[in-house]
Amino acid sequence: MNLRNYKSVAERRSALEKLTGVMFTHTGKFTLDEQITTARNCENMIGVTQVPLGIAGPLSVKREAESIRQAQDKRGKEKEFYIPLATTEGALVASVNRGCKAISESGGCLVHSHRIGATRGPVFQTTGTAQNQQLYEWIESHEQELAHAAESTSGHLKFKKAKVTTVGRYAYVRFYFDTQDAMGMNMVTIATQKMVTLIEARTRVKCLSLSGNFCVDKKASWQNFLNYRGIKAWAEVVIPEQVLKTTLKTTAQNVYQVWLAKCMLGSIMSGSIGFNAQAANVIGALFLATGQDPGHIGEGSMAVTTTEVIVSGKPTEDLYISVYLPDLMVGTVGGGTNLATQTEVLQLLGLAGGNEGNNSQRFAEIIAASVLAGEISLLSSLEEGSLARAHEKLGRGEKE
Amino acid sequence: MNLRNYKSVAERRSALEKLTGVMFTHTGKFTLDEQITTARNCENMIGVTQVPLGIAGPLSVKREAESIRQAQDKRGKEKEFYIPLATTEGALVASVNRGCKAISESGGCLVHSHRIGATRGPVFQTTGTAQNQQLYEWIESHEQELAHAAESTSGHLKFKKAKVTTVGRYAYVRFYFDTQDAMGMNMVTIATQKMVTLIEARTRVKCLSLSGNFCVDKKASWQNFLNYRGIKAWAEVVIPEQVLKTTLKTTAQNVYQVWLAKCMLGSIMSGSIGFNAQAANVIGALFLATGQDPGHIGEGSMAVTTTEVIVSGKPTEDLYISVYLPDLMVGTVGGGTNLATQTEVLQLLGLAGGNEGNNSQRFAEIIAASVLAGEISLLSSLEEGSLARAHEKLGRGEKE
Amino acid sequence: MNLRNYKSVAERRSALEKLTGVMFTHTGKFTLDEQITTARNCENMIGVTQVPLGIAGPLSVKREAESIRQAQDKRGKEKEFYIPLATTEGALVASVNRGCKAISESGGCLVHSHRIGATRGPVFQTTGTAQNQQLYEWIESHEQELAHAAESTSGHLKFKKAKVTTVGRYAYVRFYFDTQDAMGMNMVTIATQKMVTLIEARTRVKCLSLSGNFCVDKKASWQNFLNYRGIKAWAEVVIPEQVLKTTLKTTAQNVYQVWLAKCMLGSIMSGSIGFNAQAANVIGALFLATGQDPGHIGEGSMAVTTTEVIVSGKPTEDLYISVYLPDLMVGTVGGGTNLATQTEVLQLLGLAGGNEGNNSQRFAEIIAASVLAGEISLLSSLEEGSLARAHEKLGRGEKE
Amino acid sequence: MNLRNYKSVAERRSALEKLTGVMFTHTGKFTLDEQITTARNCENMIGVTQVPLGIAGPLSVKREAESIRQAQDKRGKEKEFYIPLATTEGALVASVNRGCKAISESGGCLVHSHRIGATRGPVFQTTGTAQNQQLYEWIESHEQELAHAAESTSGHLKFKKAKVTTVGRYAYVRFYFDTQDAMGMNMVTIATQKMVTLIEARTRVKCLSLSGNFCVDKKASWQNFLNYRGIKAWAEVVIPEQVLKTTLKTTAQNVYQVWLAKCMLGSIMSGSIGFNAQAANVIGALFLATGQDPGHIGEGSMAVTTTEVIVSGKPTEDLYISVYLPDLMVGTVGGGTNLATQTEVLQLLGLAGGNEGNNSQRFAEIIAASVLAGEISLLSSLEEGSLARAHEKLGRGEKE
Repeated sequence: MNLRNYKSVAERRSALEKLTGVMFTHTGKFTLDEQITTARNCENMIGVTQVPLGIAGPLSVKREAESIRQAQDKRGKEKEFYIPLATTEGALVASVNRGCKAISESGGCLVHSHRIGATRGPVFQTTGTAQNQQLYEWIESHEQELAHAAESTSGHLKFKKAKVTTVGRYAYVRFYFDTQDAMGMNMVTIATQKMVTLIEARTRVKCLSLSGNFCVDKKASWQNFLNYRGIKAWAEVVIPEQVLKTTLKTTAQNVYQVWLAKCMLGSIMSGSIGFNAQAANVIGALFLATGQDPGHIGEGSMAVTTTEVIVSGKPTEDLYISVYLPDLMVGTVGGGTNLATQTEVLQLLGLAGGNEGNNSQRFAEIIAASVLAGEISLLSSLEEGSLARAHEKLGRGEKE
Repeated sequence: MNLRNYKSVAERRSALEKLTGVMFTHTGKFTLDEQITTARNCENMIGVTQVPLGIAGPLSVKREAESIRQAQDKRGKEKEFYIPLATTEGALVASVNRGCKAISESGGCLVHSHRIGATRGPVFQTTGTAQNQQLYEWIESHEQELAHAAESTSGHLKFKKAKVTTVGRYAYVRFYFDTQDAMGMNMVTIATQKMVTLIEARTRVKCLSLSGNFCVDKKASWQNFLNYRGIKAWAEVVIPEQVLKTTLKTTAQNVYQVWLAKCMLGSIMSGSIGFNAQAANVIGALFLATGQDPGHIGEGSMAVTTTEVIVSGKPTEDLYISVYLPDLMVGTVGGGTNLATQTEVLQLLGLAGGNEGNNSQRFAEIIAASVLAGEISLLSSLEEGSLARAHEKLGRGEKE
Repeated sequence: MNLRNYKSVAERRSALEKLTGVMFTHTGKFTLDEQITTARNCENMIGVTQVPLGIAGPLSVKREAESIRQAQDKRGKEKEFYIPLATTEGALVASVNRGCKAISESGGCLVHSHRIGATRGPVFQTTGTAQNQQLYEWIESHEQELAHAAESTSGHLKFKKAKVTTVGRYAYVRFYFDTQDAMGMNMVTIATQKMVTLIEARTRVKCLSLSGNFCVDKKASWQNFLNYRGIKAWAEVVIPEQVLKTTLKTTAQNVYQVWLAKCMLGSIMSGSIGFNAQAANVIGALFLATGQDPGHIGEGSMAVTTTEVIVSGKPTEDLYISVYLPDLMVGTVGGGTNLATQTEVLQLLGLAGGNEGNNSQRFAEIIAASVLAGEISLLSSLEEGSLARAHEKLGRGEKE
Repeated sequence: MNLRNYKSVAERRSALEKLTGVMFTHTGKFTLDEQITTARNCENMIGVTQVPLGIAGPLSVKREAESIRQAQDKRGKEKEFYIPLATTEGALVASVNRGCKAISESGGCLVHSHRIGATRGPVFQTTGTAQNQQLYEWIESHEQELAHAAESTSGHLKFKKAKVTTVGRYAYVRFYFDTQDAMGMNMVTIATQKMVTLIEARTRVKCLSLSGNFCVDKKASWQNFLNYRGIKAWAEVVIPEQVLKTTLKTTAQNVYQVWLAKCMLGSIMSGSIGFNAQAANVIGALFLATGQDPGHIGEGSMAVTTTEVIVSGKPTEDLYISVYLPDLMVGTVGGGTNLATQTEVLQLLGLAGGNEGNNSQRFAEIIAASVLAGEISLLSSLEEGSLARAHEKLGRGEKE
């Protein structure tokens, strides 16, 4: 049976039902625009998977202006967000919600971000060291020409830089692009093809693969951790002792000790490339809700959480807590963001559509703030011992 | 506004609409059982995210019996599967579909798997080396007692073993469990709480955190790569030259060269903990469609792809290709698998519900086979140069 | 010029001098036994490199008995050691010396160790998954036969266990051996050859390489970090506030803050597989002085340092500090340990020659204690700001 | 007993002999200049460790000019080197020697290198994200001022660039310097202290530690692998079938298959940060012989070896083989290079003393060529099965 040979989703689904005897009663119920979805998002479509959508928050977020000095007046502008989480795992929304509450009661968290850019890393097959060096020098000295080629493919894409690494008879090139509000892998692939064609024509070196895993796309990697990818973002908050006690049922010391044993030494002792409590849970749910590519959840979750007990002359012990996300490949246009349910939640965040890169960057910052909420909640509950009790109650309380 | 204070999904959604002015017209349309979903899967629910579901296949799969010698007769039993992929990324279903076609034309792929078990890794706060050693010895010599405690918490869970590592004033313990057809993190958390209580009572050593990131849950890590987690699975196929030429428009040599430059050296040169082309894409879409936890996509995608050009006396060059997945945390009962749309696709696979661990294991093998299909397709297209053309056509062709 | 064609070191050196015009006046001065050295340690020998040997200490060390409960009476036996360091880097001996002083003033450090064993990891070329599984099962079920083959090659070697991992058409096997007081790579290579011959004969699977980098020998690796190699060792001490102040010119808080920023977050932020300050310096100098294989310095240096501020009801703040070394490939017999100058320093440690494994294990513990001394000294000086001043004075003070 | 209280090496040694009863007869025999050595290289000196020095070679090396186009005429200038190896491990010199023979018979290897620079990575304690950003911007915009401060400390040092990464309340800065022919850690530490003082004065942000493990010094790390350190170097050669057969007793296919299974998949399967056969052996022996810091052996050994079977129209199969060394911290002046025996072997290489950076760079290239020789020899012997036989003969043949 060739599933391509059906004109509509209903016909295809019906054929599959007949063939297999399985009824897709629920899968068949959907409101997405069939024509657009089948053309752009999903081949051989037979319906939709329904993923429950819960809301955490409000989450109070202050944005750190890109240049502190230029923007003293803009600093500290606070805004509240409702965080959409598509999840099937009971307790996750409740966990993030508790963290949002603690953050808001603490006066909101501060967020900040840098635009690194989408990357694509082709590999060239050379004759060895001499040709590697020639290619390296050619690329170093023709960045403008490369930019011109790249930018001819889209008005929404800017070439930023190239990094070349060579080994044996291979040259790996990592191209960085700004893709405004799009996650951008489609765009940068097309732009890279154009650049590669130029390089091949001018240097006579053949590109072996448009992606040489030097991008590196959809793999946890030190390349992306150390040299970043997409947008890198930070979020931080100081939680007063009173909020720790009342809302989180813990103390600064307790959270700190759990963090040190778990996110630092524990991650080290297991050779992790993630130094956090549950970043993947929050990022997964936010990515699903907003139509991001789930293949990027893994690299997006390489987060570092830090905590500190703050005394500063007061008789109380407050908790500084932060998250750092070096690799968020996200967008507010293109891909799954255009689907109806995904667009609705981007509207909830006030970030649907393109806005010269501001929407995607703002979105990355909200992700950081949401991850921070998840960390606060889970790190509080691990010490408190409530994790297992939460699991016992099935979807009531805390989640890892 | 406290989103918890609403009795129904509709009331909550309506309140949010009023507050924010955003209309959740599409999000509000769903057929999942509201009572069950809000109790078990998602707090503060306002509706669902619709994720397009496409079907790839049929994919022909042969199962390698767990013990080769015991089961010569059972070997080679072949079965066809339709692969459900929930995705918003155009070209992914088409890509996997092309791989399925190539596999089926090659006589089907062989799959195999080992049950490692769900793990939970608490951290204990000790007084240092001496107490670390005492705890280490106590746990080594009381595995039966620990098993008894663990297994008292659920009839579906078996304790398998414990591994202890100590550093400074911390002891990290990794408990392994068999959780049959459940992914099992809920179960093993409850069991671990019980074991930890026993250990604390008997050794007077305090558990600092029920999860010390020594599990290690939802982080790409060498612990899980080297010592495995959940189910580890393999899939392999030999693709004849004719299929390579006709269906994949390539040759064994071409695929092999791309693989070596990309999945081996390319991943090495970027410090990746993934040695494959697009495992995360396929695992992401399969996890979404079947109600797995998206937080596990990252660790699940730490896959190794291998290829080899096969000549063996023939005038033709065939391609051996395999994938190895050391860490699949998956289930066919519990969590999101019970939701209506997710259950339907598990039925399509013939794997809905519990079956003494056979369903989850079979499911892991189908994941491996599907990842193999994705690798075949993408590795063929990267060499062929069609990746960018596919992106240009928006959702027609190939995807990374 | 073929350097093999000379009967004595002097003739060879003289010939090289004539050919190149370079005089090896100092290199030619040595007291090592020429016949033994040229036969066992170094081909084409023309003399020796003289490496300055300094002494740190005394270092007070208490040994944690292997089983705490069995040996309450033996605990706490304290012994003093002078630490031999062969080094050309000014300030290193002084740095370790300062740490030794602090440890001794604190009542000595506690050490402990586990014998893991030397490992060798051959790779077999199989036909794929089915044969991988057959080989896996054969090895699992023939450990006694394998042990018999291995142990037939040497009376000093015990086979401990085998771990098999398979991928594609390859099976990797990690054999663990106890080699008593020898580092053992020679022994285990011969034993592995014998086992491999047995496996090949019985399973018809061909070994592709006697070492498949699954040992893994002389590379920093997570395999050795997570699953250990050689001897794993710990050392710890609590340094009273008074010693911190007087000898180390610092406070517990200061050392702790530097450690957290450097050995935890700093190592994480640079993707290190070492979470310490200067383990490599101390291990390098100790390995050279005692005739260990310098190729093992890299893997031996994958150390984790931990610190903690200790208050415990007192008005003072003491410092707990520990090191953990998961992979020490060391011996007191064989290799370079038999050379005259190397033997003299092993005698200084009271550990020259074989002693049923006790000498190598004790030596690993002294290495741990020495690394601890180095950590104490450097972590104190980094905060204090004296590192640069030390460098300015050329070899007076502190070293990294 | 305080070992500092002795005026001469002989007095100190004699006192230690009396105290311990151990005679340092051999250790006491040395020809190094006592006054200089005790002042610059080693405190509490009691003599020297004698490390046997063997010579491999001649090794034929051609240098790839830094800019191919500028230097067509200089290309291919070939030179022969004798490789000094200080080692106690029998078979190593013979192994490298065999590789040198194969390289020379193949017309010599091609080498190439880039000067990256010594790095030092202090960590600053900030108040969080806002101050991190301020510090980041200050450093980005004051590179000239920083260079001025740094370069005021030494006429042999040039500041190259700074890279800032921030997390939580920490800012990590990696300063890169050119230190000409010195390995340079002393110099850059002093320069960094000067820069840090400037930064503290101007930004009011306090430096927590002069080294924040962001350098990262003497640890295997992805920072150094991906972003390089010291000098990065390549070496390559094509070995004709005839040389493979006669000298190496193997074939191109055999070496290639061993390499793929061992250096690629084997290293991957054990989570190594080294993708070679025995780089650490060769680097260790060369570092010892030439007075390099043994603490840098670990990071220096993070090498990638590649091989390829070359047919190119001929009826024969040749072997392309290369090594890539991203992190060689080496020098020809300062540290241990000034000691008499170490200077003699640097003279043998024609590289003793300073030469505007040319000597250290040339030395890095010779290291690469020597590592290449070691790889050729061991990869040939692993397939051939002679590794164990070599070990059996104790120091005759091959070594890993």
